[in-house]
Amino acid sequence: MKTRAALAIEAGKPLEITEVNLDGPRAGEVMIEIKATGLCHTDEFTRSGSDPEGIFPAILGHEGAGVVVEVGAGVTSVKPGDHVIPLYTCECRECEYCLNPKTNLCQKIRTTQGQGLMPDGTSRFTTLDGDPIYHYMGCSTFSNYTVLPEIAVAKIREDAPFDKVCYIGCGVTTGIGAVIYTAKVEIGSRAIVFGLGGIGLNVIQGLRLAGADQIVGVDLNPSKKAMGERFGMTDFVNPSEVEGDLVPYLINLTKGGADYTFDATGNTRVMRQALECAHKGWGESIIIGVAAAGAEISTRPFQLVTGRSWRGTAFGGARGRTDVPKIVDWYMEGKIEIDPMITHHLKLDEINHGFDLMHEGKSIRAVVEY
Amino acid sequence: MKTRAALAIEAGKPLEITEVNLDGPRAGEVMIEIKATGLCHTDEFTRSGSDPEGIFPAILGHEGAGVVVEVGAGVTSVKPGDHVIPLYTCECRECEYCLNPKTNLCQKIRTTQGQGLMPDGTSRFTTLDGDPIYHYMGCSTFSNYTVLPEIAVAKIREDAPFDKVCYIGCGVTTGIGAVIYTAKVEIGSRAIVFGLGGIGLNVIQGLRLAGADQIVGVDLNPSKKAMGERFGMTDFVNPSEVEGDLVPYLINLTKGGADYTFDATGNTRVMRQALECAHKGWGESIIIGVAAAGAEISTRPFQLVTGRSWRGTAFGGARGRTDVPKIVDWYMEGKIEIDPMITHHLKLDEINHGFDLMHEGKSIRAVVEY
Repeated sequence: MKTRAALAIEAGKPLEITEVNLDGPRAGEVMIEIKATGLCHTDEFTRSGSDPEGIFPAILGHEGAGVVVEVGAGVTSVKPGDHVIPLYTCECRECEYCLNPKTNLCQKIRTTQGQGLMPDGTSRFTTLDGDPIYHYMGCSTFSNYTVLPEIAVAKIREDAPFDKVCYIGCGVTTGIGAVIYTAKVEIGSRAIVFGLGGIGLNVIQGLRLAGADQIVGVDLNPSKKAMGERFGMTDFVNPSEVEGDLVPYLINLTKGGADYTFDATGNTRVMRQALECAHKGWGESIIIGVAAAGAEISTRPFQLVTGRSWRGTAFGGARGRTDVPKIVDWYMEGKIEIDPMITHHLKLDEINHGFDLMHEGKSIRAVVEY
Repeated sequence: MKTRAALAIEAGKPLEITEVNLDGPRAGEVMIEIKATGLCHTDEFTRSGSDPEGIFPAILGHEGAGVVVEVGAGVTSVKPGDHVIPLYTCECRECEYCLNPKTNLCQKIRTTQGQGLMPDGTSRFTTLDGDPIYHYMGCSTFSNYTVLPEIAVAKIREDAPFDKVCYIGCGVTTGIGAVIYTAKVEIGSRAIVFGLGGIGLNVIQGLRLAGADQIVGVDLNPSKKAMGERFGMTDFVNPSEVEGDLVPYLINLTKGGADYTFDATGNTRVMRQALECAHKGWGESIIIGVAAAGAEISTRPFQLVTGRSWRGTAFGGARGRTDVPKIVDWYMEGKIEIDPMITHHLKLDEINHGFDLMHEGKSIRAVVEY
């Protein structure tokens, strides 16, 4: 069949809205009609050419929601008509990783996914001329129709609005999950969040949900203060307004250091600050942001020997098929908010404008509706 | 009173065996007759002048065992005649740290201890000329008699031999505790230990006690192999005999990386290797070794984002008054071994020879008996 898609022809070029060919689902695969997709910095990281592992031509997009339209042989967990969220971190429930309660990093289809291919080593997308197009993060939600492995779709309730819950496919889960699943923040904790973009704001509302007593947001952009407070931030710190070193300032503000700190900037210098303002004895610092290729973090080992720990999280430590439906429930029950974060609705034809909004810092999340 | 002691007059000089004056215990303090003390690398770190925070003149030594001879006003937890192990990491059971189950780093007397003083800001030691001598790590076990705060002594059973259990005052607890209290290693784990000195060997026997399935020891000195195996090591790796990079070699040896890795070298380059051969998704790397002043660890944040965590431990995460008596019991019950690690017995007059043995790599632990 044919489907409309935003095609990334080569690194650094605007996406091209075009029709492409899509093969139907093979065994263990499902075809999904994407109803809405968010535009994430990771898409832009690849589109721009900053991602050294970027493969072109490809159909980007990994933060979607839609409806199953067809299933391949042997698919039992979803059926046509089911509402689903595609998962770039799948959950096979049978690999060594899925069977270890300490991780969410299912490795079942990692190799082929990294190659832009389906698990059988082929692509479902081709140009109208028949040339191959690669999948992206196993999702390719910048296509109106796409095909995914069954283990990479989370079935969700049917009353959830696609243009909001698509954000749970990446940003919401990454931020809230870092708090709930990775850090396991306890009621009454003090926390510091570096970077108040979409991920940082979701960390903040995750902390509110977890019952944190103090939620410090750190950002160079003063306009982030109001939005941070909207989601539960108790203190705002603009490093450009702090005299002297930021770390001792934050340690003082949190009465000795934070129980948990989160980096949502991707800046390795900030990651070090985040570690070093964690509380001696027990503070944990969680890296969420993706650093520039080759960038390294560093600190004195004394920081760790005196009880701080340095950790990271991918997809918020969430197991997609198990946890994403719960997060959709939390949204529908009003435990978390998404609506004020969806700042722009676009049509597929306007998708390149969405990346412009991202660069201009005008959007928290722009969503394309098909 | 007067007592014999090994006095560190200034950085880099041999210790001088001499008589010094010792004041009796004040309120909340106890005087201990030290029966035996180990010589630890940390003593040598300070003696040699490598420790930028070293204070002189001082009486070093922090790995002792002895008998309470006198108690000051208000002391209730020990009495003359009790056998005790001095604690450089005390346990007041009432500070914010003691009341947090995530840490063992009691802060009650940290400031004065770091200044080489008792909690009231004075020293109990003076030269026979009346000049002040500083305490060291709150212990000063290189003196036949010493004074400590009550919260810094662990009461132990009376049938435990001083010349063996003194080692529990630092090395044994640091190594075994890193496994049991800090990492909380589970039965069936795979682990890698870097550096097979006294601490590394105790990590190995801690792993054996915890039921680890694979215990890999890494050391450049081939003579460490036999001793490692003696304490439960299952695989020995000499990096000088590995072709190519060590990290992928160790990942392969442990079938994907170790569940737990431990650095007992103090070398920041090794600390990075230890982190990077921990298993993706859940591997934890624990820094035990003390790095050179100013040295930094570094890695790519991707190592953490993909599920490894970087932590540290001091005194093995043990709460001294609570856990040290238990470790003495483990030794007396045969659950752990100490005897083969005490390779040399010395008299106080021979203490400088003990540091020579340490430098020559001939001793695991040299113990001075008074």
